[in-house]
Amino acid sequence: MSDSLQELRNRINHFVIERDWAQFHTPKNLAMAMIVEAAELVEQFQWDTPAESIELTPEKREAVSHELADTFVYLLRLAEVLNIDLIEAANQKINLNALKYPVEKVRGSNAKYTSYSED
Amino acid sequence: MSDSLQELRNRINHFVIERDWAQFHTPKNLAMAMIVEAAELVEQFQWDTPAESIELTPEKREAVSHELADTFVYLLRLAEVLNIDLIEAANQKINLNALKYPVEKVRGSNAKYTSYSED
Amino acid sequence: MSDSLQELRNRINHFVIERDWAQFHTPKNLAMAMIVEAAELVEQFQWDTPAESIELTPEKREAVSHELADTFVYLLRLAEVLNIDLIEAANQKINLNALKYPVEKVRGSNAKYTSYSED
Amino acid sequence: MSDSLQELRNRINHFVIERDWAQFHTPKNLAMAMIVEAAELVEQFQWDTPAESIELTPEKREAVSHELADTFVYLLRLAEVLNIDLIEAANQKINLNALKYPVEKVRGSNAKYTSYSED
Repeated sequence: MSDSLQELRNRINHFVIERDWAQFHTPKNLAMAMIVEAAELVEQFQWDTPAESIELTPEKREAVSHELADTFVYLLRLAEVLNIDLIEAANQKINLNALKYPVEKVRGSNAKYTSYSED
Repeated sequence: MSDSLQELRNRINHFVIERDWAQFHTPKNLAMAMIVEAAELVEQFQWDTPAESIELTPEKREAVSHELADTFVYLLRLAEVLNIDLIEAANQKINLNALKYPVEKVRGSNAKYTSYSED
Repeated sequence: MSDSLQELRNRINHFVIERDWAQFHTPKNLAMAMIVEAAELVEQFQWDTPAESIELTPEKREAVSHELADTFVYLLRLAEVLNIDLIEAANQKINLNALKYPVEKVRGSNAKYTSYSED
Repeated sequence: MSDSLQELRNRINHFVIERDWAQFHTPKNLAMAMIVEAAELVEQFQWDTPAESIELTPEKREAVSHELADTFVYLLRLAEVLNIDLIEAANQKINLNALKYPVEKVRGSNAKYTSYSED
């Protein structure tokens, strides 16, 4: 794992240990905490048109940045307590997705895999 | 941003462009896609006790790893389309959290900020 | 609570007891199960434009109907195990919302309460 | 649909029309709003043990009741704009679930359908 990402993980771990919060950080609880933060991100965009969701005011951009950060922090904690390398996990999943969604079949389409896999 | 994380972002961007999927990747849509993946992670743990959520079978561990990866990929895409540096955003948010949750006040407690900030 | 709603609650309770599943139905677990179903509903609409999300094919309409039903069933179970009357709770919350969002201030606007409450 | 549920739906519709908010209530947006409320419910329980999630203080009980109500209101709006009868949809889904989870196979088990359906 890369330097700045490893530094961030170390910093989060230190933050948690200092506060004696590791006792609450079971995968079950962390998955709940992560989806709560993901929902706070969804809330930022819920009444926007898709186009409006791109043009953010500075205030909204900061709020979105904070919610992205909170979601990322819990994602890193989950990976930490489960001892999963996020970068490696992502690369493996993209390998699978590349097989599942071949370019020539899905190009420009938002149809789900199931829609065309039954051809 | 670090090398392996930058490589992963580049790989994801390439994956999306090849499939002409960027047209669907508004922040609104990506926030929805991310919470859907986060929920698939929650689903893995929904009937577990907190203790059970730590002891994963190899099959469940792989499933959890895939859901973590999917959530991470959409988080990276969101950061990409909004031009937000995730590492920097996380570090800034942790700075704020350190002020909001001072060690001496929250040590070992799962009480929310609001509970003690009204002291 | 009304007759058809009470009948549905009774039917769900019977379904759960027959399967000896009440042991898993803590509020924590049910809240997780409910958000998983809510996310399956979000998934149905994630790549749609808002306009497309109204015009459903018969297949998609059926899928949406199933996800709505699953979310509703877990909502009713949560209310059941917490002994909360959903109809009464909703009416009380709407009373509060009516004070929080006075017609003359919010008409036609999707701005959040916080935006105008600081006037 | 039953009287008190129909009354509640009428009240919610009136609330929305008075504020000219129907323009924002596409199924896509309502699904987002509903999952945001479902997450606020999850937040109430995220650091609790399953046992703690049952024993609520009066304050927490009221907060939980409000989040349940908010989720229910958006569920009813979604059913309204899609012209789906929630009671009927739930009954049809329970019919399907009864076939998918036969009592003799799943009694007392939290295993998923997929686990035993491959027998």
